[in-house]
Amino acid sequence: MTRKLVLLRHGQSQWNLENRFTGWVDVDITDVGRKEAVAAGKLMRDEGLQFDVAYTSVLKRAIRTNFTALDEMDQMWVPVYKSWRLNERHYGALQGLDKAETAAKHGEAQVKIWRRSYDIPPPDMASDDPGHPKFDRRYAALDEQALPATESLATTLERVLPYWHDAIAPDLKAGKTVLVTAHGNSLRALYKYLNKVSQDEILEINIPTGIPLLFELGDDLTVQSFRYLGDPEAAKKAAEAVANQAKSKA
Amino acid sequence: MTRKLVLLRHGQSQWNLENRFTGWVDVDITDVGRKEAVAAGKLMRDEGLQFDVAYTSVLKRAIRTNFTALDEMDQMWVPVYKSWRLNERHYGALQGLDKAETAAKHGEAQVKIWRRSYDIPPPDMASDDPGHPKFDRRYAALDEQALPATESLATTLERVLPYWHDAIAPDLKAGKTVLVTAHGNSLRALYKYLNKVSQDEILEINIPTGIPLLFELGDDLTVQSFRYLGDPEAAKKAAEAVANQAKSKA
Repeated sequence: MTRKLVLLRHGQSQWNLENRFTGWVDVDITDVGRKEAVAAGKLMRDEGLQFDVAYTSVLKRAIRTNFTALDEMDQMWVPVYKSWRLNERHYGALQGLDKAETAAKHGEAQVKIWRRSYDIPPPDMASDDPGHPKFDRRYAALDEQALPATESLATTLERVLPYWHDAIAPDLKAGKTVLVTAHGNSLRALYKYLNKVSQDEILEINIPTGIPLLFELGDDLTVQSFRYLGDPEAAKKAAEAVANQAKSKA
Repeated sequence: MTRKLVLLRHGQSQWNLENRFTGWVDVDITDVGRKEAVAAGKLMRDEGLQFDVAYTSVLKRAIRTNFTALDEMDQMWVPVYKSWRLNERHYGALQGLDKAETAAKHGEAQVKIWRRSYDIPPPDMASDDPGHPKFDRRYAALDEQALPATESLATTLERVLPYWHDAIAPDLKAGKTVLVTAHGNSLRALYKYLNKVSQDEILEINIPTGIPLLFELGDDLTVQSFRYLGDPEAAKKAAEAVANQAKSKA
């Protein structure tokens, strides 16, 4: 039996536009982002996908993208689970800063390392920073020690994986068709795990916004195939645009 | 400790407008309905409500109202559970018919009985009717015998109550602040149960669309107080409008 999993990255957010480091800051999507979410829903509908369950983060840019795409598919009734473990990579002390501010504060070379290395996180967010997750009601039930003050892609993967094993994988094993609507780095973490990509290779992988990535998995959840829905050229260009944006930022 | 529960009836739906019996048909809300949902969110925000969990039906007019209100409150991250047990009363063979069609088919007097009695349901929907819930993927996991082909307010209460006891009440007992966004009759069922209203009295109670009804409950979930948020006159007029609409339909 083949199991279907779709990874969907949220549409353009306000801070994507403004070229600021977002991380766990709860920024909404723009009108362009909403259109991307509708287009993602159309692609999944045209593919004939019938979801049994959807997962998303506790950040509104992913939640709204997920809702909008399911709405477009007329599958708004599908159960949706939201977890902090699918959040974007926490960007530590850089959250909220723009490129120029960050370079001025830390130097271009250092910023490049934080952006493009696998396991070197930016400096911690100060524990008394009002933006620290421990002050946010949505994380109030969590042990404070579980909450990151910064993350690398490596530590992002470490906190995404327990949710994969405890929630998403069991649904897939039970034969469910699953949608995961999340963020550039939490989805790269899943992509690395599923496709057994090396630490170096994953740094070159960019998941475009709003283009559903469909995996077909075997009984043991090994990847049989994966592809972006819709026009392959469009997906390729969108991934390149993300890569170029990342380069221009770092 | 006082526990807070809000009951919210979805905004105007397309078939409210067209004066058709809706029941389990998955009709969306209108632009007016969306504005009602936003206004409900504003009232709850101004009240300072901070939800821990929300419940709604598997019908999009309730799901969208719930999402829109939470969005307005900037509480989109709150866990939302959707259950068929919070659906509108199933209207049996009358679903999809308008008032004139129904009166022509069954007679004015009979229609009045179905609409205004406590425990006399309309005729069953035919088991081969393509609109029967057993053909709808969202109910596929349920034992067919659990699915109604018609309901009275009495049988609606019978299927809402297990969800109250198994899901909603435990959350309230645990001290959570709970939002339930649902339908005229599933909410009347909860209202009857919570306020210990008689079978006759509940027929005179009409819950207006889009105006949050806040209950304060004691440790044992007995009702300490309940009131509509916002202008009491507005709530009263809205309830009368619902009552008059019901009368004109029957």
